[in-house]
Amino acid sequence: MPSTRSTPPAPGPVRLGPEAQAALRPAAVGIDTGFWHHRRTTNAHVSLPQGPGLLESAGNLHNLRLAAGAAEGEFRGAYPFVDTDVYKWLEAASWQLAQAPDDDLAAELAAEVSRIVDLVAAAQQPDGYLNTWFQLVKDGQRYQDLRWGHELYCAGHLIQAAVAHHRATGRRELLDVAVRFADQVDSVFGPPGSGKPIDGVDGHPEVETALVELYRETGERRYLELAGYFVDRYGHGLLGGEAYCQDRVPLREATNVEGHAVRQLYLLAGAADLATETGDAELRAAGERLWRAMTATKTHLTGGLGAHHDEEDFGDPYELPNERAYCETCAAIASVQWSWRMALLTGEARYSDLIERTLYNGFLAGVSLDGERWLYVNPLQVRDGHTDTGGDQSARRTRWFRCACCPPNVMRLLASLEHYLASTDDTGLQIHQYVAGRYTAEGVAVRAETEYPWHGTVRLTVEESPVDRPWTLSLRVPQWCRDFRVRCGEQTYDTAVSDGWLRLERTWAPGDEVVLELGLEPRLTAADPRVDAVRGCAAIERGPLVYCLEQADHPGGGLDDLVLDPTRPLAVKHRPDLLGGVTTVVAAGHRRTVPERDWWPYTPTDTAQAAGPAAGDPVELTAVPYYAWANREDGSMRVWLPLS
Amino acid sequence: MPSTRSTPPAPGPVRLGPEAQAALRPAAVGIDTGFWHHRRTTNAHVSLPQGPGLLESAGNLHNLRLAAGAAEGEFRGAYPFVDTDVYKWLEAASWQLAQAPDDDLAAELAAEVSRIVDLVAAAQQPDGYLNTWFQLVKDGQRYQDLRWGHELYCAGHLIQAAVAHHRATGRRELLDVAVRFADQVDSVFGPPGSGKPIDGVDGHPEVETALVELYRETGERRYLELAGYFVDRYGHGLLGGEAYCQDRVPLREATNVEGHAVRQLYLLAGAADLATETGDAELRAAGERLWRAMTATKTHLTGGLGAHHDEEDFGDPYELPNERAYCETCAAIASVQWSWRMALLTGEARYSDLIERTLYNGFLAGVSLDGERWLYVNPLQVRDGHTDTGGDQSARRTRWFRCACCPPNVMRLLASLEHYLASTDDTGLQIHQYVAGRYTAEGVAVRAETEYPWHGTVRLTVEESPVDRPWTLSLRVPQWCRDFRVRCGEQTYDTAVSDGWLRLERTWAPGDEVVLELGLEPRLTAADPRVDAVRGCAAIERGPLVYCLEQADHPGGGLDDLVLDPTRPLAVKHRPDLLGGVTTVVAAGHRRTVPERDWWPYTPTDTAQAAGPAAGDPVELTAVPYYAWANREDGSMRVWLPLS
Repeated sequence: MPSTRSTPPAPGPVRLGPEAQAALRPAAVGIDTGFWHHRRTTNAHVSLPQGPGLLESAGNLHNLRLAAGAAEGEFRGAYPFVDTDVYKWLEAASWQLAQAPDDDLAAELAAEVSRIVDLVAAAQQPDGYLNTWFQLVKDGQRYQDLRWGHELYCAGHLIQAAVAHHRATGRRELLDVAVRFADQVDSVFGPPGSGKPIDGVDGHPEVETALVELYRETGERRYLELAGYFVDRYGHGLLGGEAYCQDRVPLREATNVEGHAVRQLYLLAGAADLATETGDAELRAAGERLWRAMTATKTHLTGGLGAHHDEEDFGDPYELPNERAYCETCAAIASVQWSWRMALLTGEARYSDLIERTLYNGFLAGVSLDGERWLYVNPLQVRDGHTDTGGDQSARRTRWFRCACCPPNVMRLLASLEHYLASTDDTGLQIHQYVAGRYTAEGVAVRAETEYPWHGTVRLTVEESPVDRPWTLSLRVPQWCRDFRVRCGEQTYDTAVSDGWLRLERTWAPGDEVVLELGLEPRLTAADPRVDAVRGCAAIERGPLVYCLEQADHPGGGLDDLVLDPTRPLAVKHRPDLLGGVTTVVAAGHRRTVPERDWWPYTPTDTAQAAGPAAGDPVELTAVPYYAWANREDGSMRVWLPLS
Repeated sequence: MPSTRSTPPAPGPVRLGPEAQAALRPAAVGIDTGFWHHRRTTNAHVSLPQGPGLLESAGNLHNLRLAAGAAEGEFRGAYPFVDTDVYKWLEAASWQLAQAPDDDLAAELAAEVSRIVDLVAAAQQPDGYLNTWFQLVKDGQRYQDLRWGHELYCAGHLIQAAVAHHRATGRRELLDVAVRFADQVDSVFGPPGSGKPIDGVDGHPEVETALVELYRETGERRYLELAGYFVDRYGHGLLGGEAYCQDRVPLREATNVEGHAVRQLYLLAGAADLATETGDAELRAAGERLWRAMTATKTHLTGGLGAHHDEEDFGDPYELPNERAYCETCAAIASVQWSWRMALLTGEARYSDLIERTLYNGFLAGVSLDGERWLYVNPLQVRDGHTDTGGDQSARRTRWFRCACCPPNVMRLLASLEHYLASTDDTGLQIHQYVAGRYTAEGVAVRAETEYPWHGTVRLTVEESPVDRPWTLSLRVPQWCRDFRVRCGEQTYDTAVSDGWLRLERTWAPGDEVVLELGLEPRLTAADPRVDAVRGCAAIERGPLVYCLEQADHPGGGLDDLVLDPTRPLAVKHRPDLLGGVTTVVAAGHRRTVPERDWWPYTPTDTAQAAGPAAGDPVELTAVPYYAWANREDGSMRVWLPLS
């Protein structure tokens, strides 16, 4: 990048330290229209403003008042980590304030943030410790149950909220609270021989990535060192050696992701931060190795992670069930956070390929179109005859959860989304994700106009550029894309894609225009044959979107008897009336007729009965984007469609 | 059956009452050699004698001593139902004593039983209540937490043990304890208006079937009425309306099994008992309807029940995953218990078809060949790369469990197995299951010689028969059997199978011989196309046995890359050296070569890459009976084999 650096990008959730050894640095995007703007507006106008009321009625704020001595009553809530719902909301609200600090909504939001920050500060104990569950329910018995206590996990979310609040508002109130807590933690935890009383780690990683960011925000290296200590003490039996808690094997030796998905992913995000700040090549290699293993063997088509409900766990390699896929919304968020850190560290486009897939599918499904209801788990199939009585882990959208980790996590990612889309380095600007808005890096601004993901045209106009110095505009060509063109002015720009990047180097001038055309032909996708759950099936995709069938579009019978004909063409139909405006994909199929059986559904393969179901009536299959499912009446849904 | 009834069958777990409206009455079998004799000998010589030591080291007996005031210390164990491990062992030991009351082993066993019966009696409270958890941990706060307390569940297992003890030994000590507890329960629980203090049911059904049996044993109708009250109070929201606790919908209205599998099945066993004793046609119809729905849509090929770990729950219809199939051993046992009651009630052979399948597969896998290690869950697949650290719900056999419900449950079914194999009615004797031994009913005895399930010949010799009066020997032709012959003397007996029964009516005389030949050609089995988990796969079966591949027999690579060629013949190989002596089935296949991918396992169906994996090296696939899996080194396993 040329030296005329005019506007340093506004800091987001990741701001690299002065010694960071990263290939890329984050750049910001002003998202001002289009797909994500619409979702972020709902987040700002519906989800975020409802937060304080929900935190009040669920008891989270009440608990803080109790701890502050400002109220009387019983602790409310079932978990030791209920404070984090508040912290994540504060983080989300802070990022929102950073975006639009001046409008009316911002004034109200700022007032709510101030009020809740004061409450958090008042609840903190004099030595910096803060956890309402342990202060109120456990008589202050700190750090006695690291496996389940979540005290450092809570500290981590507090720190992230405080960093966001400081970056967004410039105010220190919450940062001071976080620093006091971090210092208290630092005074207690350390390796044998350090003179600190506890050699231990938290059952739920999270404080590691937060401590690195606190180091970045304050310059205090102790936090970086403490994060490094924690990351390397997992896998040594301090938590009983369970994979669930990331304690079975050290990250540096692990060959695949395992255990509780969110725990694994937050830990990996922290490890990526550490590798970035310290240049630790072994830790970087572990992250690269585990990311490849995860994506190759343990990732659902939607980017969803965590195969099964039991222990909210990554399953075995290629264990990717559809109907009970856990795919916690928080795991999708954690995946984006980790992948973004890996993208910055390595400069490789594949990390942003997964981010794109996750954002448009496994993540976005977690919030309803109206911004008021949530999914904790994101299965790829709900069967005909499914009985769903609601609750945290149901396939029915819910107003709030007993364990409400996901909703404020969605809010914070949506509110900070502009920080995950672009980067800069000494060669120029890299566009990782295509949104309508203005991409800025030092000395450079590029406006993007696009109706992506519905239309594949992205029109980029250089608005600011260093004069008479060449720089490179790098465009990610998505991994799913088989057909693209790029024009610069009147000419097709002749350049090859290298490792997912289309690099356009020239001396740019304001007004220069680049038009990228990403082919959005709908396609059928098959899985590696080791993914047993989808053998003999295909999924419909278009651009970055995974599609699904919903019962609402297929009256006259269940979804599980529908069969896709892969030899017939797929048609695209724009439906502004449907689900907030979506492009549907229409496929040819039929309704399977299964021979009636008395009671036993297994038959010899060589009998006529097993010769296969007769093809029944032709049916037009209407697929809608997966992110938009479960926004109409309850009913079955499936992503993977049988071909026979 | 002619009137010369000489020897009434020894009573087993089910003895019909004098007013029972059942099609069939249980008959007994003396199993004296062969497959099940071998497994029962291991049960008698290894599993059962180890029981008291395991119950001692797990703390169960200690808790009883504590409750009796005969020891000091803390309650041990994590569950309110730990007493049932003792009760189920007592029941198992009692059935064992009934079989062989005179040998040396029996003397030792009888002494242990007496000692533990005394302990149970001493722990009982003066008014009859008995539950060590509530007596010791919960300060005697009885019946305050019916959803989770398991107090009536414990009462049920106590009653079943007491009935077994009484039937087997003629002694009343334990029966008196059970009667006192049952009377205490009866004094507390009743419908509104009954004047009894609590209108409620237990979160875990079990007491219902036990109370019916206590009625049968004592003649006291109050117990039958109490059972009827409990059965009909499920499904009315007394437990919060959860399917898990069988409280979402009354049995009489239910259209499919749901919720926690063992809870559902014990409740259905109780309902079948009630329908039998009362002639309640609606309850019988509910049982028939739910049995058909369960077998058609929610039963694994092995007879395993309970699709997923989360809540130990039946899943949705056709949700039958392989790699995380829960299929709790206790659910298989409960299924046998329920199906046997339905078989007696209706006289229909299909119930015994499921019993056979369950006994030889889903049930028997629950205990190791050496009788010392157990499986709680019985998946149909363990993947390559599976990380298993042991514990209750692992795919690795374990010496005992934290929640040790399954091992003594296996012991009691094995020790009472002879009561689930044959029946009698006014027409004669029905043989439901083929074992080597002596089938007896009133006035009739038939000796069976067979090496079933390894060989299909069953040689039946009439040893006792009424003189000059015709009666019917009914032989169940298994649902899986496509090819059978029956000879009587020199002639092939010419008779048709009706509803699964081959009915041979004649005037039999001692020495008459019937030879049944069941064709045991190995076969490939496919599933209903709605069973998504096994699309494009087949399973190997032979006779009643489901087969599986194990890693131990397939060196040189993982199991998940092996592909079965369904066009090539299956070969049978008897292997007396292997796994205690099994017949293996050898199939032709190959090792799939999957194109190397960088990181993303999903590809467009129309690209060359997705054209399918190349066929690799031919591999001989050696399948072993599923029941024998996990008796060698840890490794992957699969029942359903991909055809491409």
